[in-house]
Amino acid sequence: MIVQKQFSIKFLPSKKTIKVPKDYNLRQAALDCGIDIESSCGGVGTCGRCKVQVKNGHVQSKRSKFITSDEKKRGYVLSCLAKVKSNLTVFIHEKKVKKAKIEEGQIESVIGKIYSGIEKDVFAAVEIKPWIIKERIKVEKPTLNYNINDFYRLQKSIKNKLKIENIAVPIKTLRKLPLLLRESDWEVIITLDKSTNTLINIQRGSSEKKCFGFALDIGTTTLVMRLVDLATGEVVDSTSEYNPQIKFGEDIINRIIYSIKKGGLNRLREAVIDSVNGMILRLLANSKINEEDVVAVMVAGNSTMMHIFYGIPPRFIREEPYVTVTNKFINTSADELDLKYVRNAVVYSIEGVTSYLGGDITSGVLATGIANKKELTLFLDLGTNGELVVGNLEWIMGCSCSAGPAFEGGGVRCGVRAVEGAIEMVVIDQDTYKCFYEVIGSKKPVGICGSGLIDLLGEMYLKGVIDRKGKFNEDIGNPYLKYLDNEFCYVLVDSENSGTGEDIFITEVDINNLMRAKAAVYSGIKTLLEEVDLNLKNIEKIYIAGGLGKNINVQNAIVIGMFPDIDIKKYYFLGNTSIMGAYLCLLSEDKFKYSEEIANKITYIELSMNMKFMDRYIAGLFLPYTDLKDFPTVESLLYSV
Amino acid sequence: MIVQKQFSIKFLPSKKTIKVPKDYNLRQAALDCGIDIESSCGGVGTCGRCKVQVKNGHVQSKRSKFITSDEKKRGYVLSCLAKVKSNLTVFIHEKKVKKAKIEEGQIESVIGKIYSGIEKDVFAAVEIKPWIIKERIKVEKPTLNYNINDFYRLQKSIKNKLKIENIAVPIKTLRKLPLLLRESDWEVIITLDKSTNTLINIQRGSSEKKCFGFALDIGTTTLVMRLVDLATGEVVDSTSEYNPQIKFGEDIINRIIYSIKKGGLNRLREAVIDSVNGMILRLLANSKINEEDVVAVMVAGNSTMMHIFYGIPPRFIREEPYVTVTNKFINTSADELDLKYVRNAVVYSIEGVTSYLGGDITSGVLATGIANKKELTLFLDLGTNGELVVGNLEWIMGCSCSAGPAFEGGGVRCGVRAVEGAIEMVVIDQDTYKCFYEVIGSKKPVGICGSGLIDLLGEMYLKGVIDRKGKFNEDIGNPYLKYLDNEFCYVLVDSENSGTGEDIFITEVDINNLMRAKAAVYSGIKTLLEEVDLNLKNIEKIYIAGGLGKNINVQNAIVIGMFPDIDIKKYYFLGNTSIMGAYLCLLSEDKFKYSEEIANKITYIELSMNMKFMDRYIAGLFLPYTDLKDFPTVESLLYSV
Repeated sequence: MIVQKQFSIKFLPSKKTIKVPKDYNLRQAALDCGIDIESSCGGVGTCGRCKVQVKNGHVQSKRSKFITSDEKKRGYVLSCLAKVKSNLTVFIHEKKVKKAKIEEGQIESVIGKIYSGIEKDVFAAVEIKPWIIKERIKVEKPTLNYNINDFYRLQKSIKNKLKIENIAVPIKTLRKLPLLLRESDWEVIITLDKSTNTLINIQRGSSEKKCFGFALDIGTTTLVMRLVDLATGEVVDSTSEYNPQIKFGEDIINRIIYSIKKGGLNRLREAVIDSVNGMILRLLANSKINEEDVVAVMVAGNSTMMHIFYGIPPRFIREEPYVTVTNKFINTSADELDLKYVRNAVVYSIEGVTSYLGGDITSGVLATGIANKKELTLFLDLGTNGELVVGNLEWIMGCSCSAGPAFEGGGVRCGVRAVEGAIEMVVIDQDTYKCFYEVIGSKKPVGICGSGLIDLLGEMYLKGVIDRKGKFNEDIGNPYLKYLDNEFCYVLVDSENSGTGEDIFITEVDINNLMRAKAAVYSGIKTLLEEVDLNLKNIEKIYIAGGLGKNINVQNAIVIGMFPDIDIKKYYFLGNTSIMGAYLCLLSEDKFKYSEEIANKITYIELSMNMKFMDRYIAGLFLPYTDLKDFPTVESLLYSV
Repeated sequence: MIVQKQFSIKFLPSKKTIKVPKDYNLRQAALDCGIDIESSCGGVGTCGRCKVQVKNGHVQSKRSKFITSDEKKRGYVLSCLAKVKSNLTVFIHEKKVKKAKIEEGQIESVIGKIYSGIEKDVFAAVEIKPWIIKERIKVEKPTLNYNINDFYRLQKSIKNKLKIENIAVPIKTLRKLPLLLRESDWEVIITLDKSTNTLINIQRGSSEKKCFGFALDIGTTTLVMRLVDLATGEVVDSTSEYNPQIKFGEDIINRIIYSIKKGGLNRLREAVIDSVNGMILRLLANSKINEEDVVAVMVAGNSTMMHIFYGIPPRFIREEPYVTVTNKFINTSADELDLKYVRNAVVYSIEGVTSYLGGDITSGVLATGIANKKELTLFLDLGTNGELVVGNLEWIMGCSCSAGPAFEGGGVRCGVRAVEGAIEMVVIDQDTYKCFYEVIGSKKPVGICGSGLIDLLGEMYLKGVIDRKGKFNEDIGNPYLKYLDNEFCYVLVDSENSGTGEDIFITEVDINNLMRAKAAVYSGIKTLLEEVDLNLKNIEKIYIAGGLGKNINVQNAIVIGMFPDIDIKKYYFLGNTSIMGAYLCLLSEDKFKYSEEIANKITYIELSMNMKFMDRYIAGLFLPYTDLKDFPTVESLLYSV
């Protein structure tokens, strides 16, 4: 059947136009146009972020609590719920347009901040033991008396020099071999993967022996990449950008939902591959490193991200009983995965544990060295999802606590990620209830990021703006409490001082989302420890990794009952441990092999069906917790206020 | 630089036209048009076969001994030497247009004849031991208590059923796994290569467990393919066609020369891949076998053909010191080699010995079982090239005797391959010198093929038409001896009785080429035996394989001094032993592994630098040989005539 594209849509203010068939989804039409319309629910009408104004024409839509009756009259609809019924002119409010590619340096500066704070002693020292090597090999010239084939003679030279036998050679390498050998006078540079005895590449003998690799962390929200000199371990350059899949859904659940749509998995895969290609190109261009010298890409990511990266349907990660297709992916050529500019590289990835405890956690456990130490360590990776691991050299257990993206700005109306303009620190004046804040960069505030939200929640609670249930105290005479869009909100920044020209505020719905996130983290920690008959006193160190970074005010995280109330000296903020583990695996075959051991050593605890977890989760929907005895410091703070 | 295509060429009688830039090669222009213009030298002006008549317009050409001054006046040129200098109208004589794709059944009928004559006892009995298997596997359904990943559970089931562990799975198979498992209710058909523990494919559980493979022999002249049921060994169907690379050169030397031209290797490779794809499609369509059930392609061919098939430059096979790039090619996906219709199959190939003793010979030695028998066997594979092997279970030696394509019709003016219309048997009347003949099929003769040429040479010698040096006896009153185009020729068929409308004849140049070919074979045999301190009396059996087939009159082959003068009961004609060996390897992993042993067991003797070979070769340029004592039977025949 040929679908006739009968209706024309013009999007304002971009003036982009597109033709679509009748009943086409309006949000999809915007995406098809290249407009990255905001959404955190992946297009099922539950986040209210993809609101647009239909200026001309007719759409059919469903009712939504996010559209007021006034807005409805003015043509507002949730684009994800709207079907095209005529030619349209549609206005997408500029605030709704996200830039998938942020300005050079913007995110790097934030991530740089995190890296600079890495506690060097925490990370296991790595003995650089390159396992993908380049070697200059002199091959014997054939003569009439010794006219054995080129590849045999090459193998013989490799055996003599490196003691490596039975080398496998892909056809594409063989195709280059005869001319290269002769043009370079029987001296070539070979690239050899010693873990599989595979001849990855051959180059002219005159080239340098340098060997580079990329470490890549595919986060749900952020992609991070390091260009590494495999012989010295030097990080030549690094870069990061948002995961462009965000436009298809903010968290992994919404990505998986999107992946089930026709062509969805491919679009998700292409989005991340395109971004990675862009990052590779940027890193190579900046460093002036020849693409032929890049021999490996080591990838870490959660199970959903890895499935999508390899083009494997992630659908059953979300459907009971929540299984991955595999946790370990076969070594693959960069070519096969459509990675450009590094066609001769091999792509390796770090083995995951299970659906909700992926290779990023294996990588983090490797990097932090938890599995080698006697002391009991609790490891929290707080990205878009939250994962917890506890253990030592004898055992390791882990769980996922489904914290959700609230602390990354998801599900919070004025929430943003930790970019320039984000409020990252908050103090509330006890007398006036006025909010004081610090902003990343020296810009007007545009929203509030994770660390700011933790501060805000803690401050609101300590200063009485909200009660223990997270409801506004309406009777304290707080002048910043306003009634807006049918609900109360606390205004942090008024429209005059805001970078967006609109108030920056927090609502009870936002607070509720934050409460659920923090409750999930704490409840996860408690339940995990109980599973191994331990309590918080046994924990010697707490490592915090992930997007929330080191700007968190630990005290406030304790006040809101997200982090356990133990000596704050035990807390270490490590930044992105996933990229760190991938980096270590690039440099040492032992580490890479050891990462497989770790993946198999971690015992996964499924919390979603655990009644004790649920009980504690409910108990965690109070500030800081139903039972204040768990939080003696907070109790004393409350009395001191 | 943009090359302007300024001149237009019209080819007659096909009326095909093409635009080309100035100085473009005329023969290439015809090839570009899809006209398979004849050539046995690959386009270097030494075979004279690509003669065309320029009817209108101007070309620049070099002098050629193949163009008489009369022809030159009439516009004849060798198209391979002609540069386009204006718009042209060019007539390509119909006889010069070869059909690369012959009529269905035409070549099959000839090859069928050969196969029907296979001496069954010669071929080693094969115990069918499928190593690429399909198995129905029941996979445990995951539950919340057993939610380990899909691939792990599949592996576990495979281990339980087949005792096979550590299975490798390509990404493209993983991509299909989760949905297939669920849609087929946890019962799937896996295709497993037990030699590498690789999961080649998975299919729905409802499919049949049938497993098919293709055996493919890539000959310089002919491609042969069998579709084989891997469980039973049944040859479901087979097909063959000319190697379309012929248009780029008749023998391997000319193919290699062509491969060095810009884009030449690719054109050669595409030609053979296209043909193989066509054969695959035909075999699948005829047999109604599902392409997903084809799991393997086993390829045998000489070293040059194998290099081209895999896209590896064959250039140094021809240049001193004559080395291949490799004799063993890694297992490759059909996809990677651009084989369509069998995308899930793995392509295997049979290891060769050296540049001029390829996998086709390894395959033949395997099929004939020479390497397992006590008795000393001489094995001759007489295709476009000639290879000789001698040995038994203790040792095997081999050489290539560079016989050239004379007995396949190359270098002989009226020579054709063994197709319908070819003269395959010749007797000359002693009194009248008239030639009597038999033709393949019931058509008027169009030329003379290998077996016919052997008969003709023997008969001409025995009946005194030519002397021992291969020169015509001009004084015997032979009415069929004519003077044509500046040379004497013996007319076998006059234009009235010929299928081409022209005389069918043989010239002294033709005879000279045949003499050289037969001298090379015999000289090769003698030298090879001497290298191992043996003589002809020690030979217990002689196996003849290759295109010459079983229609050879052994007695005549002895008369001309091509085959040694030993009891003709010792001769066995086996047809294509290369395809036979590939077929056996498809059916049995043991045989496939054993083929590698054979390749390594064969000691290669280089004849091209061997002075004794050269001496004997010169001696062989007499009929039957300088020293008649080597040919007692022939001596007695001569006296009896």
